[in-house]
Amino acid sequence: MKLTVLGCYSATPRALTNTTSQVLEINNHMFLIDCGEGTQVQLRRHKIKFSRIKHIFISHLHGDHFFGLVGLISTFRLLTRKTDLHIYGPKGIKEVVTLQMKLADSWTNYQLIFHELTSNESEMIFEDDLVEVHTIPLEHRVYTNGFLFKEKAGDRKLDIKAVKEANINVAYYRKLKQGGDVVNEKGELIKNELVTISPDNPKSYAFCSDTVYKEDIVTIIKNTTVLYHESTFLEKHAHLASKTKHSTAKQAAMIAKHGNVETLLLGHYSTRYDGLDGFKNEAEEIFGNVKLCEDGKVFSF
Amino acid sequence: MKLTVLGCYSATPRALTNTTSQVLEINNHMFLIDCGEGTQVQLRRHKIKFSRIKHIFISHLHGDHFFGLVGLISTFRLLTRKTDLHIYGPKGIKEVVTLQMKLADSWTNYQLIFHELTSNESEMIFEDDLVEVHTIPLEHRVYTNGFLFKEKAGDRKLDIKAVKEANINVAYYRKLKQGGDVVNEKGELIKNELVTISPDNPKSYAFCSDTVYKEDIVTIIKNTTVLYHESTFLEKHAHLASKTKHSTAKQAAMIAKHGNVETLLLGHYSTRYDGLDGFKNEAEEIFGNVKLCEDGKVFSF
Repeated sequence: MKLTVLGCYSATPRALTNTTSQVLEINNHMFLIDCGEGTQVQLRRHKIKFSRIKHIFISHLHGDHFFGLVGLISTFRLLTRKTDLHIYGPKGIKEVVTLQMKLADSWTNYQLIFHELTSNESEMIFEDDLVEVHTIPLEHRVYTNGFLFKEKAGDRKLDIKAVKEANINVAYYRKLKQGGDVVNEKGELIKNELVTISPDNPKSYAFCSDTVYKEDIVTIIKNTTVLYHESTFLEKHAHLASKTKHSTAKQAAMIAKHGNVETLLLGHYSTRYDGLDGFKNEAEEIFGNVKLCEDGKVFSF
Repeated sequence: MKLTVLGCYSATPRALTNTTSQVLEINNHMFLIDCGEGTQVQLRRHKIKFSRIKHIFISHLHGDHFFGLVGLISTFRLLTRKTDLHIYGPKGIKEVVTLQMKLADSWTNYQLIFHELTSNESEMIFEDDLVEVHTIPLEHRVYTNGFLFKEKAGDRKLDIKAVKEANINVAYYRKLKQGGDVVNEKGELIKNELVTISPDNPKSYAFCSDTVYKEDIVTIIKNTTVLYHESTFLEKHAHLASKTKHSTAKQAAMIAKHGNVETLLLGHYSTRYDGLDGFKNEAEEIFGNVKLCEDGKVFSF
């Protein structure tokens, strides 16, 4: 699982800081999460192949999370994209994108498929053999969802040496990978666990931005490998956090602790602070494994 | 008159090239012309004070000319702007901006005044004591206007030495500046031209993008100080220019020549070419004074 942070600051893009956008590579998928103004340039800067992006998830319709979307869609068209593009986001996202295409008289020559979200309950919005994506209902000034990306457990791996020693016919390998016991060439029953190895633990990534401190998301993000939780403010500005429906670094860490996640990633920083150490220090008082997002940073988990 | 080129490439923003946006300073006004994605970042990069921009002119509703507008409007709000903002552009521009503000539930706390354009004839869309702005109807794939910015002739300047020698009371200075003859302390009639100097020639700037070669704009841009004319292609791709309703560098130069302008500025380059020399060379075969726009370049005229 690999995460490329294209932008991790709040409010407005500036000369040296970008607004929210991330690329998550998980089980061969490449998901784009949020799309602030300038995301397409950040994608180019970090040499991410546009054609690999087939699903875009938009948390909410504030500019710093989606003003780059229509430009990216338009650029896909100019690059003569043919592949379907799925867009998941709040109701209204289809109207605003199609209005801009109508005014520009420039329709896509690829399928643009909108999945508009309206529920306040967590729901599964994408599933295939490799991953599932669920919404994480958040609480912000407008309708907002976080997203939980979960690898599915893969097949068991063959212990090739053991399989050969047990005289198992190759025709049974698939059954072994799926966890079944098999009969060998001599007619003996071979227990699966004697000749296979557990697959890697499935990984998961929870993206939670923007939101106030909302303890009931803990049940959804419980035990995730990595939790990204917004930390717009430090505790000394907790009054601003609650007023603007954002979180502090301490609050992000409390969600991580209650959720028993492996790693907490912080981001969506207000640019009012000098440097990011304050965020890390504050969160580490509550939770042990804190990492800071920075524009352009790549994490492998 | 000072022009800052924020972006001068066509189609899509890239890591090193920006789409169309320019800031024109003329007679104390600061006009923003077009607003491709990332314009607000370019404004910051070039240290242009956001608060000085009170009028934004949008030629047409293709993304590379206006996808940065809603982000800029939104950032003005976050900066707690109070001053009115006037936006001139094709019909539809108000709908798309207001829809995005509605979806984000974030209304401006300053007056946002739209002047939607629909005419196919040149019309004066702004006037005060210092400047006039007229549309230049262009021909592109969607409804498009260029803009002609014209200084008004200023007051005559006093030749202070001559004024004093002629014994003219200070109470008459304003009349002198306005071109009138006056009577001096001795009761003698003093001819205006003996004690005043002509003001600087009023300057003008014509912005023409995007458009096919359209000879009838020559009557509108005749004798302008500076003509910016798009040159997306070189002549070897003239077939693409006519197909996509753009111009070549040669065609831009022909408009400059027929219009008897002082300086031709080229821009809106396709990124298919290696470097910009080809554009300049091609135009100079037709017209003597050609300059190339480049992102970040500042011209004083």
